[in-house]
Amino acid sequence: MTDRSIHNRKDEHIHITLNEQVQGKGISTGFESYRFEHQALPEISFDSIDTSATFLHKQVKVPFLISSMTGGTPRAHEINRNLASAAEEKGWALGLGSSRVALENKAAAASFQLREEAPTIPIFANIGAVQLNYGYGPEECSQIVRLTGADAIVLHLNSMQEIFQDEGDTNFSGLLSKIAKVADTLSVPVGVKEVGFGIAPDTCSQLIGAGVQFIDTAGAGGTSWIEVEKYRSQNTIKQRAASAFLDWGLPTAKCVKRLSGMPKPPDCLIASGGITNGVDAAKAIALGADMAGYGRSILPEAVDSKEALLQRFEQLELELRISMFGIGAQNLEALKNTDRLISQNA
Amino acid sequence: MTDRSIHNRKDEHIHITLNEQVQGKGISTGFESYRFEHQALPEISFDSIDTSATFLHKQVKVPFLISSMTGGTPRAHEINRNLASAAEEKGWALGLGSSRVALENKAAAASFQLREEAPTIPIFANIGAVQLNYGYGPEECSQIVRLTGADAIVLHLNSMQEIFQDEGDTNFSGLLSKIAKVADTLSVPVGVKEVGFGIAPDTCSQLIGAGVQFIDTAGAGGTSWIEVEKYRSQNTIKQRAASAFLDWGLPTAKCVKRLSGMPKPPDCLIASGGITNGVDAAKAIALGADMAGYGRSILPEAVDSKEALLQRFEQLELELRISMFGIGAQNLEALKNTDRLISQNA
Amino acid sequence: MTDRSIHNRKDEHIHITLNEQVQGKGISTGFESYRFEHQALPEISFDSIDTSATFLHKQVKVPFLISSMTGGTPRAHEINRNLASAAEEKGWALGLGSSRVALENKAAAASFQLREEAPTIPIFANIGAVQLNYGYGPEECSQIVRLTGADAIVLHLNSMQEIFQDEGDTNFSGLLSKIAKVADTLSVPVGVKEVGFGIAPDTCSQLIGAGVQFIDTAGAGGTSWIEVEKYRSQNTIKQRAASAFLDWGLPTAKCVKRLSGMPKPPDCLIASGGITNGVDAAKAIALGADMAGYGRSILPEAVDSKEALLQRFEQLELELRISMFGIGAQNLEALKNTDRLISQNA
Amino acid sequence: MTDRSIHNRKDEHIHITLNEQVQGKGISTGFESYRFEHQALPEISFDSIDTSATFLHKQVKVPFLISSMTGGTPRAHEINRNLASAAEEKGWALGLGSSRVALENKAAAASFQLREEAPTIPIFANIGAVQLNYGYGPEECSQIVRLTGADAIVLHLNSMQEIFQDEGDTNFSGLLSKIAKVADTLSVPVGVKEVGFGIAPDTCSQLIGAGVQFIDTAGAGGTSWIEVEKYRSQNTIKQRAASAFLDWGLPTAKCVKRLSGMPKPPDCLIASGGITNGVDAAKAIALGADMAGYGRSILPEAVDSKEALLQRFEQLELELRISMFGIGAQNLEALKNTDRLISQNA
Ligand SMILES: Cc1cc2nc3c(=O)[nH]c(=O)nc-3n(C[C@H](O)[C@H](O)[C@H](O)COP(=O)(O)O)c2cc1C
Ligand SMILES: Cc1cc2nc3c(=O)[nH]c(=O)nc-3n(C[C@H](O)[C@H](O)[C@H](O)COP(=O)(O)O)c2cc1C
Ligand SMILES: Cc1cc2nc3c(=O)[nH]c(=O)nc-3n(C[C@H](O)[C@H](O)[C@H](O)COP(=O)(O)O)c2cc1C
Ligand SMILES: Cc1cc2nc3c(=O)[nH]c(=O)nc-3n(C[C@H](O)[C@H](O)[C@H](O)COP(=O)(O)O)c2cc1C
Repeated sequence: MTDRSIHNRKDEHIHITLNEQVQGKGISTGFESYRFEHQALPEISFDSIDTSATFLHKQVKVPFLISSMTGGTPRAHEINRNLASAAEEKGWALGLGSSRVALENKAAAASFQLREEAPTIPIFANIGAVQLNYGYGPEECSQIVRLTGADAIVLHLNSMQEIFQDEGDTNFSGLLSKIAKVADTLSVPVGVKEVGFGIAPDTCSQLIGAGVQFIDTAGAGGTSWIEVEKYRSQNTIKQRAASAFLDWGLPTAKCVKRLSGMPKPPDCLIASGGITNGVDAAKAIALGADMAGYGRSILPEAVDSKEALLQRFEQLELELRISMFGIGAQNLEALKNTDRLISQNA
Repeated sequence: MTDRSIHNRKDEHIHITLNEQVQGKGISTGFESYRFEHQALPEISFDSIDTSATFLHKQVKVPFLISSMTGGTPRAHEINRNLASAAEEKGWALGLGSSRVALENKAAAASFQLREEAPTIPIFANIGAVQLNYGYGPEECSQIVRLTGADAIVLHLNSMQEIFQDEGDTNFSGLLSKIAKVADTLSVPVGVKEVGFGIAPDTCSQLIGAGVQFIDTAGAGGTSWIEVEKYRSQNTIKQRAASAFLDWGLPTAKCVKRLSGMPKPPDCLIASGGITNGVDAAKAIALGADMAGYGRSILPEAVDSKEALLQRFEQLELELRISMFGIGAQNLEALKNTDRLISQNA
Repeated sequence: MTDRSIHNRKDEHIHITLNEQVQGKGISTGFESYRFEHQALPEISFDSIDTSATFLHKQVKVPFLISSMTGGTPRAHEINRNLASAAEEKGWALGLGSSRVALENKAAAASFQLREEAPTIPIFANIGAVQLNYGYGPEECSQIVRLTGADAIVLHLNSMQEIFQDEGDTNFSGLLSKIAKVADTLSVPVGVKEVGFGIAPDTCSQLIGAGVQFIDTAGAGGTSWIEVEKYRSQNTIKQRAASAFLDWGLPTAKCVKRLSGMPKPPDCLIASGGITNGVDAAKAIALGADMAGYGRSILPEAVDSKEALLQRFEQLELELRISMFGIGAQNLEALKNTDRLISQNA
Repeated sequence: MTDRSIHNRKDEHIHITLNEQVQGKGISTGFESYRFEHQALPEISFDSIDTSATFLHKQVKVPFLISSMTGGTPRAHEINRNLASAAEEKGWALGLGSSRVALENKAAAASFQLREEAPTIPIFANIGAVQLNYGYGPEECSQIVRLTGADAIVLHLNSMQEIFQDEGDTNFSGLLSKIAKVADTLSVPVGVKEVGFGIAPDTCSQLIGAGVQFIDTAGAGGTSWIEVEKYRSQNTIKQRAASAFLDWGLPTAKCVKRLSGMPKPPDCLIASGGITNGVDAAKAIALGADMAGYGRSILPEAVDSKEALLQRFEQLELELRISMFGIGAQNLEALKNTDRLISQNA
């Protein structure tokens, strides 16, 4: 696979996720089946609500992060600049898109170097876990961390995406031990995420056992990478097969609930996949997540401008704060321990 | 905040609730999930059904009240006159809108003085509980009671409304002890209500502990004050955030059921929030409420004329009486203790 | 009330039920939530299936009856002639419409005298139970039985209909003891039915205790008499109130299940109310009913001709027989005791 | 019944199932209420997935079979040739349509002789079980097996189809012992299938007891033979009656789950009825089936060409393999024993 093909792919991904119906069908995040129990007498002042959190040993103003999305092309660079400077200003954490290309191509590397725009916030680099079967290893991961100035690296598991990609890498055997080696070798924390199909408790357990320090559900109900790759595929049989998998995956809310309810839950659990507002983020935290991630839903603003992002970030933060006010939670600790999140199904 | 701003706000509220879609979305009162079990052999005569009740030490012909709505402007004065004289004629109880402005402005005060139109029925005055953090206290509450000739005062809890109001008062800290002081000081009963998001059992317990004598659920499923304020807001971020809260709140039927099922339920429990007919009122009473309140659903008639109100009141009373006949309940005691209200979900 | 008013009412009822949407809304019979478990190997021959039953000490070819509908006017007389001769030919039982008018008016009486058309089948006369509070008693019931040559009389309970009728008789007090007196006095069996809102187990118990020998659920999910009377009413308040009662009543399937499951179920239980095909009738029998009744759904054919009725009766019988074949039930005993009726909700 | 009438019927069946809405209404296979739990870390290579199985003592490349459909006419012959050569190429098993006509008519026989096109794959012949009451027996079954070179014969139970067929054979009495005799006599395995209404556990038990060696659910949710015969019927009463049976039958997924969960499940269980993609087939196997059958859903391709079929077969196989990859199942044994199939209702 040439660098060029990755470049094209990156821009195609942005184009498709912005313009096509790429949401899974017949599946939802599951947050809609939870409701906060209103606290009519919150006994707090709205202005005193504290949403600050610690992530990757740094302070963030809100427990929000930008899910790994892009890099490697001029357009991606501009998007990343907008994301980085808005995140810095609003105190969010920032995930970089898959940084493989940064090692292979100097020009591309610049698009992942965002410490000028975002000197203080947590940044984490990203690479596909399956690449550990295709020539990458601890050394390359270290290089990426150095090159990006990242506080951590997150490996993404994306089996279903690779299958539906015409040029996909589909040998997922023996990855667990290779992930363990990366986690063992690197000087920064190593996390694992999915890309929209979720991580189940048994897999989570194995990953924690392998030394992975944070887990991002990236569950179903938002962007479906089967749908995205369907738009790119030249293979009509694969395209048709995609229809049978529109509802594949573990709904995000269910993932969060199950992972945080494990006997030994991850030290740091990120909820993502289809989260589009601050109320769902608040629900995720009340279900046990430490952070909430936003991907495709902030892409339009990221493409537009830093200013558009700042407005959106303010809105999302406001929605979180109002949720907390509505149940009388003064800070994230109180939100996480609330008994005011009610399942409609129970 | 000048008197003028309150005046405008009051008329805007009436205008918006009459003309816009201000109902919560994705939420309902929950009464639709209950059904009365028909009694084919009621063994009573329809004409002998007795719907009379006692409220605030006075007799009412039906267990119905007009929820606190308005006052303070000429238009509001006319509405209040219609409401008061219809309530007097049909034996309903009457809630006044927030009477803060009556203390600040003599001209406005007249619109809350309705004893000429309604000499015998129970009337209760109203003020926002949060005002106890903004300069109001037992003394002002007493003044309002005297000025309106009310039999009681009800403090409304409206955290979510204040947040979405551009000019909102959002310091809700320490209110419980201040409510206790008002309840302790006043010579008339003090009640607490919400404005459409409901009151949960734990909050209800605290309020009873504070000496509050009656509780009005004002639950979700009817008017959403987040929606109402969205129409008034100049702040686009708040307006957008509002969409994430359209289904906020505790459904009225659920509130009533849970509050009446508390180990120590309130002495007097009012069901309101989205009640629009006499059958839902009957269900509320069968679930444990003592009275049922009607707000926005009678506003069109209140704006129109006393005659329109009288017709509507007759219809609502008829619906209650037919519900009672349909299950063979001779009086409200029998309705309250019926085992013929069936949950569809159980 | 003059005879004339009853006459008009009868023809209006037919006109309205034929031409308007008079089904309850937001309620159904409940048969749709049951499904027969297919028996792929029925081990019977279709031609050998036996659907005969005994009703009112007479043999019927199918366990089907025509629900009480009409009489008293020339149009009603013609309808009754069609019903009687088709029932005779196909071996159904026949219910007459309310026969009060027959006592008051000789001309009207003829329309209830159908023994010429139907010499051998079970026929039962009908009168409103509430009439026992308005001048009728055992003596009048006996007269009706003699005049019609009926094998039984069924008293209908119709509290909700009377309420919504402008001229309704609404004193339902003390009826149980009067029903007991009729049952005690008459030489033929006395039954009780509703008219579309169902009979609950406690009421059924009381009726059995009073000597009533058969019970017809006439449950909800079919014709709603609140709807029918709404079309006739001149009273706008009643008309508006009707909307709050569109889903009133006990669904027929639920009634049947609960009545047949009583510690002491009625000796003869008729399922009716919204039954429109032979599969639902089969389900009713599998739930414990002895007979199934068809009302409004056969009215169009009854108005049309005996031939149309015969075709419809054949279809209904065929549907019953196919249901029995589909689960391998050779006769009604086997159908009644089948374990192949499955609730979708369980 | 003349040969000619069967011939016409065969072509009519193809014409109707291709062109009319013949799916049951108000019923579904039930597979939609199951979901696979995604395994983000499958630890296998996609290319190493093994879908091979053994059926009728032969190896198949995928656990898929073509449900019995047709034969006996020139058009049917061509369809069968396409099916046979595509099945041979892709390693599927092949079911022949009812082969009764092959005994009665030499010309027709050729259309069932497909060993030239499909020398190595499992082929099974087919005849209606009810024919054992109409002159057929072990001897005729043996002849059909010889004539077709089949590895087995499957008897279909189709009571509901025969009823709605104008010319139907509806004596289903005493079939069990006759099936036992066929199973006892024949040198090849004897199976039993339905045609779209499913087989319940008690019936399955009886069939196993009678020596039947494989069971094909042919459950509800796909083609409804009541619908198909409705289009052919000249009998208006039967046509109208059909509407009451559109939701008849046991949903396929439920059948599979219940049959595989029997204390003594069949040695070989085939899931079919409304299976249209490889994911549902995978679900069926995870629920306990050994093979999955495709009927009407591949008919359009079968009518079109071998090439169209090959493409469709590739797609179905791909869908199965991706399902297995998505849950980390290396082979069918692992798929069958997976705990990653989750019921949405539980
Ligand atoms: C344009 C785009 C590019 C993405 N690229 C990556 C990537 O390089 N690495 C990765 O781990 N996830 C990537 N993702 C997946 C997201 O991180 C996220 O897990 C997924 O989109 C689900 O979240 P959402 O529903 O909020 O979009 C990408 C998503 C989008 C929309
Ligand atoms: C026009 C309008 C004005 C209101 N003003 C007040 C008020 O001043 N004080 C108060 O406690 N509630 C106020 N409310 C809330 C109502 O008392 C009631 O709790 C709420 O509308 C929910 O009931 P509903 O669904 O029947 O309208 C107002 C409602 C309306 C529609
Ligand atoms: C036109 C018409 C007239 C009726 N008249 C009577 C009556 O006189 N007495 C009675 O007991 N029920 C009467 N009924 C009620 C029916 O007997 C039956 O209980 C009811 O319609 C519900 O059954 P359905 O849904 O099958 O129509 C009448 C129904 C109809 C449609
Ligand atoms: C055109 C057509 C012809 C069929 N002929 C037969 C047959 O001869 N014998 C048989 O057992 N089933 C026959 N079937 C039924 C199928 O084998 C299968 O059980 C049924 O169609 C349900 O599966 P499906 O939903 O995948 O179509 C036929 C189905 C079709 C569509």
